Amino acid sequence: MHATDINMIGTCDSEVYPIKVKTRHSFEYLRQYPHLRCRTNAFGSLLRVRNAATMLIHSYFQDNSFIHINTPIITSNDCEGAGELFKIEPEKQVDESSESEECKHFFDVPVYLTVSGQLQLEAMASGLSKVYTFGPTFRAENSQTRKHLAEFYMVEAEVAFTQSLEDIMQIMEGCVKCVTNRIIEQCPHEVELFHKHVAASNHKDLLKKILDKTYKRITYSDAINILQKKKGFEFPTQWGCDLQSEHEKYLVKYFNNVPVFVTDYPACLKPFYARDNQDSPNTVAAVDLLMPVIGELFGGSLREERLDVLQNNLTTQGQASEYEWYLDLRKHGSVPHGGFGMGFERFLQCILGIDNIKDTIPFPRFPHSCLL
Amino acid sequence: MHATDINMIGTCDSEVYPIKVKTRHSFEYLRQYPHLRCRTNAFGSLLRVRNAATMLIHSYFQDNSFIHINTPIITSNDCEGAGELFKIEPEKQVDESSESEECKHFFDVPVYLTVSGQLQLEAMASGLSKVYTFGPTFRAENSQTRKHLAEFYMVEAEVAFTQSLEDIMQIMEGCVKCVTNRIIEQCPHEVELFHKHVAASNHKDLLKKILDKTYKRITYSDAINILQKKKGFEFPTQWGCDLQSEHEKYLVKYFNNVPVFVTDYPACLKPFYARDNQDSPNTVAAVDLLMPVIGELFGGSLREERLDVLQNNLTTQGQASEYEWYLDLRKHGSVPHGGFGMGFERFLQCILGIDNIKDTIPFPRFPHSCLL
Repeated sequence: MHATDINMIGTCDSEVYPIKVKTRHSFEYLRQYPHLRCRTNAFGSLLRVRNAATMLIHSYFQDNSFIHINTPIITSNDCEGAGELFKIEPEKQVDESSESEECKHFFDVPVYLTVSGQLQLEAMASGLSKVYTFGPTFRAENSQTRKHLAEFYMVEAEVAFTQSLEDIMQIMEGCVKCVTNRIIEQCPHEVELFHKHVAASNHKDLLKKILDKTYKRITYSDAINILQKKKGFEFPTQWGCDLQSEHEKYLVKYFNNVPVFVTDYPACLKPFYARDNQDSPNTVAAVDLLMPVIGELFGGSLREERLDVLQNNLTTQGQASEYEWYLDLRKHGSVPHGGFGMGFERFLQCILGIDNIKDTIPFPRFPHSCLL
Repeated sequence: MHATDINMIGTCDSEVYPIKVKTRHSFEYLRQYPHLRCRTNAFGSLLRVRNAATMLIHSYFQDNSFIHINTPIITSNDCEGAGELFKIEPEKQVDESSESEECKHFFDVPVYLTVSGQLQLEAMASGLSKVYTFGPTFRAENSQTRKHLAEFYMVEAEVAFTQSLEDIMQIMEGCVKCVTNRIIEQCPHEVELFHKHVAASNHKDLLKKILDKTYKRITYSDAINILQKKKGFEFPTQWGCDLQSEHEKYLVKYFNNVPVFVTDYPACLKPFYARDNQDSPNTVAAVDLLMPVIGELFGGSLREERLDVLQNNLTTQGQASEYEWYLDLRKHGSVPHGGFGMGFERFLQCILGIDNIKDTIPFPRFPHSCLL
């Protein structure tokens, strides 16, 4: 570069500017300045990779004839049946003094921030066959880990007319490989910066396996057998126990760091909408994809499409009245279908080797922190 | 199509199914069934156009070297300085009984659903030059109109190193023309369905003007002169009064239905961050784009990049302490910049000729209604 002219547009006093010249600040330090850290090489690179990854995920689904749907952010549903919700009210209360429950709420009913767009996406799949959503989701979990945010992005997809978990797994595996490959093509310098200065030293090898190997497929029961041969886990490894982070990591290592699909979970570990395996009625056609470093990246399942079985599942949980519209989908022309969700920030952690999820998103929200 | 085989996958009892064969249900009727209306021709077409429009908007910005940023949904800021906010709390209160204000909140501070990503986008533009966001925004307005939703999508962009409103207007005009053109190319049957059965009879002519004409550019003062020559408006047309819907519609008609940029508004009508016009100090470099049928589609401005002026604007409003991070952007290497926002659902209304904004989004949220 040969400059013919230099103009001073805006001055910056290096004494008070929190980012110092020729200093490699830690990600933790930079997290205090979400409005300034985008000016550093590392975080600028992260944002360019995040941009590329966003577009490549859209392309993957568009190229495979999926239609993008904006599932709602404010919802009167609770997809997972679990607590950990944020509730929403207008700042100016509608009518605090009202006796009627209806007048107290802007929407007449209590509403929450979405934890998943899946159920609404299923409704859309019944009209458009293949659909996906890629938007913000929320958890009010009061936990500080390197894998959790209160506001994060999920890619969720639903496919009508499938009766096979293998179909769903192929879309997941295809998505990871295709998007990762093209990120490396489109952002070679940015990816290199992270692999050289941020990720663990073996990260390139892990990435090669993610790109080149066919992912392992084992059942939950197989997984339990493998885990039970090993001693020293903190959490139990009985059949029926949920796989913990330590188990996920061990399973991936056991398969030499090749990503692992674990399928056919005990019904009690998965939500009411997961479809029964007819040949093994105490398990459901659900799948998690476990990755090196981060553990679970995707979760998916076939969805129960039979009205009577779904009704029964919901009645057992005392929830049938809340899901009338969801039962409607089975009442009026139901088809076998399935889908999955992927945490976008975990995907970025996995590709770039970023230890803390707070460094993968421009404005991290977590307990005690909502800067800007 | 020649079928060799027919399989009944899921039955549907036409007696109880709310959508009747060979019946053209009104959009208002279908709105009661957000989980089923995607199965109709009209709403299926809307969703395919919405999908195409989403991707084409991304392409427009990506092709012009903008980087996509996920601005936060949960925020401790209030961009517009106006009320109409939704506040957020965990469903399980953190510690109701605590004396300290901090312990009452999950994030230590009161937080809200975003009304705009602009301020955060300005921070990103200071690191990445050209940025945009395309996500959900929220208003707790208790009004039922055909142009308002409590949850809607906005495209917002910021451009560093510009000192000219004309630059910003060219991006807006380019975006509308390019995206509209390509929607018609990619979804000819869907667009035709709306133009034939839904839009007003002159809609194709309007669309031709949107595509072919150079948009008019007039100042707010010019607009007031034009309006004052006409009698019979409900709202006043004095200099300093905001343009109302009736004024916007008249101005577009006055220019024979060619879209109109109105620039250089009185400072009192625009937020604290709009930049002064140095040659006319009681006006600011702000612009609205008015379209046929819907009125205002875009709003934008140059942003005040001078620390002392911005500080003064904020102090006048008693808000300087809340915007310390925003002032930081001016303290540390400030550059002239500007940007704009476009309501995505209004854009769809405009292209397809849809009367009610509730019929442009899969899951409309408005006072008294949050289905699914």
